[in-house]
Amino acid sequence: MNMKPEVNAARLLASVADFAAIGATPAGGVNRQALGVEDRVARRLLAERALARGFSVFQDEIANLFIRREGRDASLPPLLIGSHLDSQPNGGRFDGALGTLSAFEALEALADAGVETDHAVEVVAFTNEEGSRYAPGCMGSMAFAGAGALAEWQSIHATDGPVLAEELATTLAALPEAKMRPIGHAISAFVELHIEQGPILEREDVPIGVVTAVQGTKWLEVTFSGKAAHAGTTPLEFRKDPMSAAVAAIASLQSAIMPTDPDARLTVGRIAAEPGSINVIPNSVTFTVDIRHPDAATLAVIERHVRDECEAASARWDCELAIKQRVDMPPGRFAQSIVEAIENSCERLGLKSRRMVSGAFHDALFVNRVAPTAMIFVPCRDGISHNEAEFVADHHMISGARVLLDVVERLGANSKAFRSTSL
Amino acid sequence: MNMKPEVNAARLLASVADFAAIGATPAGGVNRQALGVEDRVARRLLAERALARGFSVFQDEIANLFIRREGRDASLPPLLIGSHLDSQPNGGRFDGALGTLSAFEALEALADAGVETDHAVEVVAFTNEEGSRYAPGCMGSMAFAGAGALAEWQSIHATDGPVLAEELATTLAALPEAKMRPIGHAISAFVELHIEQGPILEREDVPIGVVTAVQGTKWLEVTFSGKAAHAGTTPLEFRKDPMSAAVAAIASLQSAIMPTDPDARLTVGRIAAEPGSINVIPNSVTFTVDIRHPDAATLAVIERHVRDECEAASARWDCELAIKQRVDMPPGRFAQSIVEAIENSCERLGLKSRRMVSGAFHDALFVNRVAPTAMIFVPCRDGISHNEAEFVADHHMISGARVLLDVVERLGANSKAFRSTSL
Repeated sequence: MNMKPEVNAARLLASVADFAAIGATPAGGVNRQALGVEDRVARRLLAERALARGFSVFQDEIANLFIRREGRDASLPPLLIGSHLDSQPNGGRFDGALGTLSAFEALEALADAGVETDHAVEVVAFTNEEGSRYAPGCMGSMAFAGAGALAEWQSIHATDGPVLAEELATTLAALPEAKMRPIGHAISAFVELHIEQGPILEREDVPIGVVTAVQGTKWLEVTFSGKAAHAGTTPLEFRKDPMSAAVAAIASLQSAIMPTDPDARLTVGRIAAEPGSINVIPNSVTFTVDIRHPDAATLAVIERHVRDECEAASARWDCELAIKQRVDMPPGRFAQSIVEAIENSCERLGLKSRRMVSGAFHDALFVNRVAPTAMIFVPCRDGISHNEAEFVADHHMISGARVLLDVVERLGANSKAFRSTSL
Repeated sequence: MNMKPEVNAARLLASVADFAAIGATPAGGVNRQALGVEDRVARRLLAERALARGFSVFQDEIANLFIRREGRDASLPPLLIGSHLDSQPNGGRFDGALGTLSAFEALEALADAGVETDHAVEVVAFTNEEGSRYAPGCMGSMAFAGAGALAEWQSIHATDGPVLAEELATTLAALPEAKMRPIGHAISAFVELHIEQGPILEREDVPIGVVTAVQGTKWLEVTFSGKAAHAGTTPLEFRKDPMSAAVAAIASLQSAIMPTDPDARLTVGRIAAEPGSINVIPNSVTFTVDIRHPDAATLAVIERHVRDECEAASARWDCELAIKQRVDMPPGRFAQSIVEAIENSCERLGLKSRRMVSGAFHDALFVNRVAPTAMIFVPCRDGISHNEAEFVADHHMISGARVLLDVVERLGANSKAFRSTSL
């Protein structure tokens, strides 16, 4: 009893492989979309392993799954660690799963070593982080943090048909061993380990990213409307060409936004022309703009810039302009105390780390609204994610899990250590 | 006998209305695609009216339909007039039909007046001008002019299924009254009346366009390939963004080509990004470029410019570039003699005319390779065509038919008049 807890590397890697088999795709990825059959199989596997270890299992109304290892003092709110188990349709095996399974490994390592903590420690697998089968994503963590209401989502249809309420009921019923609890119980802190999904850690050969913030994100859908006309018979002065307006606006934005601010991101991922005939000047061109920035005020300035540029193009090319806002997610700054706890753990373990901003959103962004939160990033090959080619080297998985375990020890092991992080 | 032949305006308008009912769409257009059921009904109606007037009816192997009114001298090649009867899927009632029915009206007017011509006069409805159901378009006129071989098209599938050979056989069999003749018999000249499909005549309030040339057309399909990556996590220096390359190239071409040459046309009608997710930098962006110019050498220069611009964008944005040529149709210059014959007829009839270049291709472009050819354009509202809203005012239809009839009288009425146009 009371040995120094250690990550069981073989067990962690086997666990990642076991879960990768659930919804495995031929190209080595996973298709384990939220609340589908494979998601339910993965939840069951985690719950069974938890019960076999003597941990207790809970679910809430939105099917967030919790694995709880009791602490010494039941009056203290639990320390929450974990991520999600659902994937993109052609997702990788690490996105979400690695964070959830590293958290479960931390729980097992504590149990192996017989370490008692003041706080209970809970592993969470949040429901529907990806948002691919049911939009929006991060439903579980949003509901947990009171940032979104389950009632509003119940009638949303999956891309493959069934409404959320139906799949949610089936998912909850599939795990009768789990006790139901209300959504959004008090926690002392949240730590989420995740793959970076970007190229920076790999390129700089740094094994641990300490995430200080999540960029704010705005999604705009821009439509220029002109007048469809024959490509051959219509001279320039008779054209109202929305393609000209669209490419002028996009080209201008691409040379204005990112080159002048290394923290800014601007992406046009989708574009279409109607009617889409080779020999017809389009009637309309629609494209999406994804803009991100860690600073809310700067993000607003960028949005203004996008709108101004589109208005200028609209005037110059004599086209109508319509802009719809699809997503408006403010940036989140993580808790200094948790960021420093992660950095301290890296130091203790002799692992190089660097602070970074997450370009993707995560469950941690929402949980951060109700409890001190931060994230641990591990490198992934070529920055590739949301892709069956997603890959994390074994030693990076192990290092990440070791950092998480050390953080858990510090934040959960006893109240004194926890409070000393001055949350 | 031997009265001055006159267009029967009421009969012409009724005829246009009768044919517009075949394949009529709810919005007032027609869907009478090549070699389909409606196309066969239209052919039958024309053939029946021809036989009722004592004209003879022929078809060739590609189902080009000919209505022949004999001339005085059977050894002279016939004068050919006409256009096509097939339409776009959401086409207008005038594109093709007006030219065919005005030609038939000319034949009836000659017969009404009992005018004998030296040359036989033949009305043609060329098969599959539109190319919407079976690509390429202008099959009938290409085969007629030896510019395309029926054998190569026989196994092409329609957008709705059946191969060309099958529909061709059904179409030919549906008109047993028509005598078969070989493809591409000798003709003395060809005159095609058509709607302008552009805005110029209407805007200038000129009732007749005398078409001196058809622009050359090149269709390019350009693909930039980069690397798909997460919109939020990928800094500028890690991006290979084909969207940036595409919009830079298109924007540059749009400000370089048309503004500096009023005869040039450049249109990007179709564009798509793969995978097409809002939050993913595209892996590839593909777009089409339709370029046109009446001068072959200038058209080649424009194509070079397009390729150079794309190569520059490819280098600047570190993307791969692939360009496929889809269409390469050289410009056609019509016969001076026929152009002047049309102008003379306009003068005689007191109708203002202007010379113009056709931006669209037509059957006349191909027939021009084997016989002196020119075209008569009439105005259409707002330049709209290939659209159910296509509209031609009655008085413009009547004026066009009068010019055509007068040209037919001049070119076909007697050999002397015909030869005097110094073909």
